[in-house]
Amino acid sequence: MAPLGVALAGLGTVGAGVFALLRDRAETLAERAGRPIRVVAVSARDRTRDRGLDLDGVAWFDDAAEMARDADADIFVELIGGEDGIAKAACEAALDAGRDVVTANKALLARHGTRLARLAEETGRTLGFEAAVAGGIPIVKALREGLAANRISAIYGILNGTCNYILTQMRETGRPFDEVLADAQALGYAEADPAFDIDGIDAAHKLAILTALGFGTEIDFDGVHVEGIRHVSADDIVFAEELGYRIKLLGIARRTAHGIEQRVHPCMIPQAAPLARVEGVFNAVVAEGDSVGTTVFEGRGAGAGPTASAVVADIVDLARGLRLPVFAAPAAGLAPAGTAAMERHAGPYYLRLVVVDRPGVIADVAAALRDEQISMESMIQRGRAPGEAVPVVLTTHETEEAAMTRALARIETLGSVVQAPRMIRIESLVS
Amino acid sequence: MAPLGVALAGLGTVGAGVFALLRDRAETLAERAGRPIRVVAVSARDRTRDRGLDLDGVAWFDDAAEMARDADADIFVELIGGEDGIAKAACEAALDAGRDVVTANKALLARHGTRLARLAEETGRTLGFEAAVAGGIPIVKALREGLAANRISAIYGILNGTCNYILTQMRETGRPFDEVLADAQALGYAEADPAFDIDGIDAAHKLAILTALGFGTEIDFDGVHVEGIRHVSADDIVFAEELGYRIKLLGIARRTAHGIEQRVHPCMIPQAAPLARVEGVFNAVVAEGDSVGTTVFEGRGAGAGPTASAVVADIVDLARGLRLPVFAAPAAGLAPAGTAAMERHAGPYYLRLVVVDRPGVIADVAAALRDEQISMESMIQRGRAPGEAVPVVLTTHETEEAAMTRALARIETLGSVVQAPRMIRIESLVS
Repeated sequence: MAPLGVALAGLGTVGAGVFALLRDRAETLAERAGRPIRVVAVSARDRTRDRGLDLDGVAWFDDAAEMARDADADIFVELIGGEDGIAKAACEAALDAGRDVVTANKALLARHGTRLARLAEETGRTLGFEAAVAGGIPIVKALREGLAANRISAIYGILNGTCNYILTQMRETGRPFDEVLADAQALGYAEADPAFDIDGIDAAHKLAILTALGFGTEIDFDGVHVEGIRHVSADDIVFAEELGYRIKLLGIARRTAHGIEQRVHPCMIPQAAPLARVEGVFNAVVAEGDSVGTTVFEGRGAGAGPTASAVVADIVDLARGLRLPVFAAPAAGLAPAGTAAMERHAGPYYLRLVVVDRPGVIADVAAALRDEQISMESMIQRGRAPGEAVPVVLTTHETEEAAMTRALARIETLGSVVQAPRMIRIESLVS
Repeated sequence: MAPLGVALAGLGTVGAGVFALLRDRAETLAERAGRPIRVVAVSARDRTRDRGLDLDGVAWFDDAAEMARDADADIFVELIGGEDGIAKAACEAALDAGRDVVTANKALLARHGTRLARLAEETGRTLGFEAAVAGGIPIVKALREGLAANRISAIYGILNGTCNYILTQMRETGRPFDEVLADAQALGYAEADPAFDIDGIDAAHKLAILTALGFGTEIDFDGVHVEGIRHVSADDIVFAEELGYRIKLLGIARRTAHGIEQRVHPCMIPQAAPLARVEGVFNAVVAEGDSVGTTVFEGRGAGAGPTASAVVADIVDLARGLRLPVFAAPAAGLAPAGTAAMERHAGPYYLRLVVVDRPGVIADVAAALRDEQISMESMIQRGRAPGEAVPVVLTTHETEEAAMTRALARIETLGSVVQAPRMIRIESLVS
């Protein structure tokens, strides 16, 4: 069979990893794909940079969109990144030119996934994005194919390795967020500008993609409720342990009576939950289906090796002729997202207050909760320091987010409450 | 597109589950498969039994092989079971007749998988078997497609839910094997004749299949070293906890200098290992690849729902036209198994002896180990009871199985050793 020609845009660590893997594993991959796979064209910013790759006989393009349009290739692989600009233009050009696309670009898909899926369908092509979610873990394939017989009720998981590393380190060392973040940056586990990871945007991109895939809906990134981990304190971590929980940044998509919830925020989860012991830079995704029950997929969520592994798996699928609807169901048939409003979320809550230690404070807080019909589950006030500021921790039974928001606004106005109250949602993770 | 016709052999709980799923989820499945999927023929032992299924318009065959040959179907689904007999004859007949086969039959594949793969290839068909390993967990798809870019160095996991349930119960209740097994039988978690599960055969079938798939070799079920869990005592479980381990029945396939090890036996694994907290009837499989690193797949390993989920996923793949080599690489290209001899296995060991409590006994045991160059790591002798039988537990540093076998033979002959020594292999599970 004729070789499959690949045009590769982006030669950073992942792009170079894909190039090397296709070269070093050529024989095995040809056997698995039923035909040889060849990189026929590449594009990157700087032609002169030595990447340790032998580009002899490979066409060079300075412009990725031009390569997507003009290269003599079957597949266009986009490893440039960015939600707009050249990455988007090049993917569109490739689909327009009748080429399949493989991308690791979660931002692009979270913003433009539905439209790209439609474009792919119109041109009879497809778009592979295994590498865009949870690195090397084949969760896209699992949801699109392996669990195809299931009605999915929930998908959730640890989708950002940087946050998980920071939270793990905070727990293990007892050190505060800022110090641990600085260390993570020094070690290369966090970017110089860490906002994208620690504010939850990256996890939200991935969650929006998983939601579309698992529930057969259009992508609704703007509907994802997003909170990052900046406000998780060393105190919260200690209290969580004491209460039998562990704090994780989760992305959660779940069918509810009000629509599909999509939310990314720090969660307190039971220490016995499978996700609780997923530590450090690892990712894990749980999918709950009506036939299969609960399934868990775990592995490295980032890095050149895992990401290249996923990109090449997509390329091999395309070489075999596997051409599936981008989000499992035909793009025209994707249901509107119908994302549930966050105010309708219901669950138990953890609250941490800093209050002046004097009689009546807890009574005032309790009254604020009572007036919103919120039932307290536990209260911890450690130590005594009359007249000084002390932390008080409360947990509640299940309540609606809107009621909690109103109660927190009132609590904040109490004279004895000296800091904005901190709230972390408790997730039992029991389906 | 024309509907895909399915001939379904076996209407037990799984077969009935598949039938119901294809009927109840028809619209979604048609959308995902790009064409309707219809059960056009069924076969089972007893036509008169009421299974709660509406078989109107579905052809009935008393003989599965006849159905495989003659039914007007594209796919033959084998849910009869058994490594020979009608299941095998019917699968062969279906492939001969140019039909694809989907099966949940691990025994059949472990015994005849290589030959069936060759037959499928000769007739231009394929054989799907996602349901044969780890129930609803899409591990076959992950190894064949999702991790296709990787050179796999090891695959291991908890492959038998019955054994895992029994070991979990023994640990949680402190009760002995026989009692827990009887309970498991009463609850339906173990068969009336439990040998197949508790002696490790079922796990060995699955391991042999995973090995072929992950390493691109012919199936070598006879090469799998198999030990079950009958000899795991309540004492072993207590000592394991004390030593920081948990006892699990694992199936392990690993590349070594002597070939690919394939072994199923009780293991002591670190309590911090991901597999240690996979409890009850759950299964979990770990795959280690050179690009992706360590990946873990977890879910229900048995039951009508999970198994039907996997069978239907295979059917949807075939409906889409996905037709891959049975064991990822073309059958003609599968390497000989080259299974490593168990005597060449190297690792640390746990030994439990029952000895007469008198001076010099440990010295005799230590000498037997020393003479085989086996280095002791720890020794526990609880309590004192001079002149009576007491348990003594030893752990060793890494040593070769052959040396351990010789040392155990000598220890058994010592006058103060009053029972056959028990040995459990320690697995660090660090790659």
